Amino acid sequence: MEAYFDNAATTRVYPEVQEIVDRMMTKEFGNPSSLHRIGIEAERYVKEAQVAIARILKADPKEIYFTSGGTESDNWALFGTARAARRRGKHIVISAVEHAAVASPAGALEDMGWEVTRVGVDSEGYVDPQAVADAVREDTILVSVMAVNNEIGTVEPVEEIAELVKKKNPETVMHVDAIQAFGKIPVRPGRSKIDLLSVSGHKIHGPKGTGFLYIKEGTKIAPLIFGGGQQNNMRSGTDNVPGIAGLGLASQMAADAMEENARKMNRLRGLLAEGAGSIDGAAINGPKVQDAAPHIVNLSFPGIRSEVLLHALEDREIYVSAGSACSSHRHGGSATLSAIGLPPERIDSAVRFSFCGQNTEEQVRCAIGALKELVPQLRRFTRR
Amino acid sequence: MEAYFDNAATTRVYPEVQEIVDRMMTKEFGNPSSLHRIGIEAERYVKEAQVAIARILKADPKEIYFTSGGTESDNWALFGTARAARRRGKHIVISAVEHAAVASPAGALEDMGWEVTRVGVDSEGYVDPQAVADAVREDTILVSVMAVNNEIGTVEPVEEIAELVKKKNPETVMHVDAIQAFGKIPVRPGRSKIDLLSVSGHKIHGPKGTGFLYIKEGTKIAPLIFGGGQQNNMRSGTDNVPGIAGLGLASQMAADAMEENARKMNRLRGLLAEGAGSIDGAAINGPKVQDAAPHIVNLSFPGIRSEVLLHALEDREIYVSAGSACSSHRHGGSATLSAIGLPPERIDSAVRFSFCGQNTEEQVRCAIGALKELVPQLRRFTRR
Repeated sequence: MEAYFDNAATTRVYPEVQEIVDRMMTKEFGNPSSLHRIGIEAERYVKEAQVAIARILKADPKEIYFTSGGTESDNWALFGTARAARRRGKHIVISAVEHAAVASPAGALEDMGWEVTRVGVDSEGYVDPQAVADAVREDTILVSVMAVNNEIGTVEPVEEIAELVKKKNPETVMHVDAIQAFGKIPVRPGRSKIDLLSVSGHKIHGPKGTGFLYIKEGTKIAPLIFGGGQQNNMRSGTDNVPGIAGLGLASQMAADAMEENARKMNRLRGLLAEGAGSIDGAAINGPKVQDAAPHIVNLSFPGIRSEVLLHALEDREIYVSAGSACSSHRHGGSATLSAIGLPPERIDSAVRFSFCGQNTEEQVRCAIGALKELVPQLRRFTRR
Repeated sequence: MEAYFDNAATTRVYPEVQEIVDRMMTKEFGNPSSLHRIGIEAERYVKEAQVAIARILKADPKEIYFTSGGTESDNWALFGTARAARRRGKHIVISAVEHAAVASPAGALEDMGWEVTRVGVDSEGYVDPQAVADAVREDTILVSVMAVNNEIGTVEPVEEIAELVKKKNPETVMHVDAIQAFGKIPVRPGRSKIDLLSVSGHKIHGPKGTGFLYIKEGTKIAPLIFGGGQQNNMRSGTDNVPGIAGLGLASQMAADAMEENARKMNRLRGLLAEGAGSIDGAAINGPKVQDAAPHIVNLSFPGIRSEVLLHALEDREIYVSAGSACSSHRHGGSATLSAIGLPPERIDSAVRFSFCGQNTEEQVRCAIGALKELVPQLRRFTRR
């Protein structure tokens, strides 16, 4: 039985989303910048997607700006804020467990003369709100903390962090990478002190190459991509109308099914953690299972390298991730697993199972059975 | 009869392209960064698209980097070169008729301390290669000239410009915005001194939200978007595999049909120019019809505002553009029509017809008939 447990890397597009993308590619294919009917009809879909997403975020439709994905949204948040605020200060605060889409632009800014403070996390991956607030100074232009950790599923207290940051320095812009949170847990920047929030389409059964950045009204941010002046002159380039329409629908579907899917994934996740956790030497990495985001479990089987177990599971059509596929791009170690202080043997043997609402109990039982067989076998091979 | 003559704004996706995008969204939906089979299969499509495009450009597959579209490609060329070369110099040369996707990043760089020289054009929109070379200095890091003008179809001598630029300063990076050229006229950076070349998918019946930047091996350019290290660490973010596969196929189809489509569009364009040009007071803007790119004709009917004629044609299901939809975003005048020295009444009354291989002679005859009826009628209204 095929069992895809790599939904934090990417998801299968919903048939309903596929259908709308399809239609917009060939039937209502206009350029929203065109003045004629075919352009105006295309523009209507963009506006509808803005409205649908804004409703979920308790935000205003004009606060939603479409991008080519979560990585662009994160880059825009960092570079756009840095550019807009460069006369006010050059200090940025991020957590030690940010995805590369935040950590890497922060590093690039560091190379260009900005100063970056990285706030550490505890053994479960939690960022301490007070520690973030303490790091904020008069010249701090931006704080960026993720909502859900992509490797171990820690749910960060981003709203509380935003409160404390703003109390310390009301001028500091608060960015949240919500790429693993949106559609999984409530995300409501419109009701909090969060100024910028990044989301990706392909993590929620939407099209790849889509995403958005929520920009609270009044937030000072420069564009990342300049040109024809689309999206209120904030993100140029012909709107990807099929992608945007698909993202709008996927967001709506994710929001509608969120509670039900979370309940289901939590049950499956608990089952897996219990079954796999009982294997000799197995350890769960990160937060307590009941506290983590509903879709992620990270497990180590010390003595077996992640890739070896990944490929052994793959032979049985069970698909998992070694570390975090989309942040490591097949290289290097895991920033998160190091940051929570795991020893090398735990890091080198970590695999991530990530769920979606379509996974089944049967798939989980099958995975547990496979792990119970494979782990002792592979340990024997490794020891020889 | 419906007649869509706005193909320079955007095109209808080919059914074959739609089919592959479709399949990649739901069947082979993996993340190329995943280590397992589903990821590796997705990666194969990315590589195949690189190979197909490289063959067309006489380039190496690893010189093709996928982006979210032509605007991102142009922005990357400008900002990426500026960043990589900031210690070598801060002078950039562009033409006076560049698309906003080049002109606007150049303006942003100017605001940040770079110096930009804008080389003018003659009355047909041609950039003089010697004038560009004369503008190049020791501190010139980049020259950017478009291959085909998006408003009037002028085919710029970009290969000759690249030769002269490199002779003057071998360190200067030569960028070509080939968004209106690729698939319409031969574009072969691999056989010329062009270092960077931008292409968009949705202008060639490919998916919106796709494009690429050709980067000649050895060219010094920094990333625009940082993160997980995808695409050889040059353009991070999960690859938009459906879009990339669709772009690869659309590029192949455009290249295969290029000669035949050019012949057909040239014939239709000649027919339109002759028929519409015979209307009292009509004037063709830009280069001689036989010298222009095969898909663009720009006509003025002085005394009738562009938008008025556009909407009158729209009532008859004939879709054209006022000025350049994708660069003006419904605002402001046309940079190109001003740069070629047209008087305001010609600029205000300009409409662009842009063709694709699917337009028919019947559609063109229908458009000519409509213009012959509408132009005198609208002139009477305007005069009252």
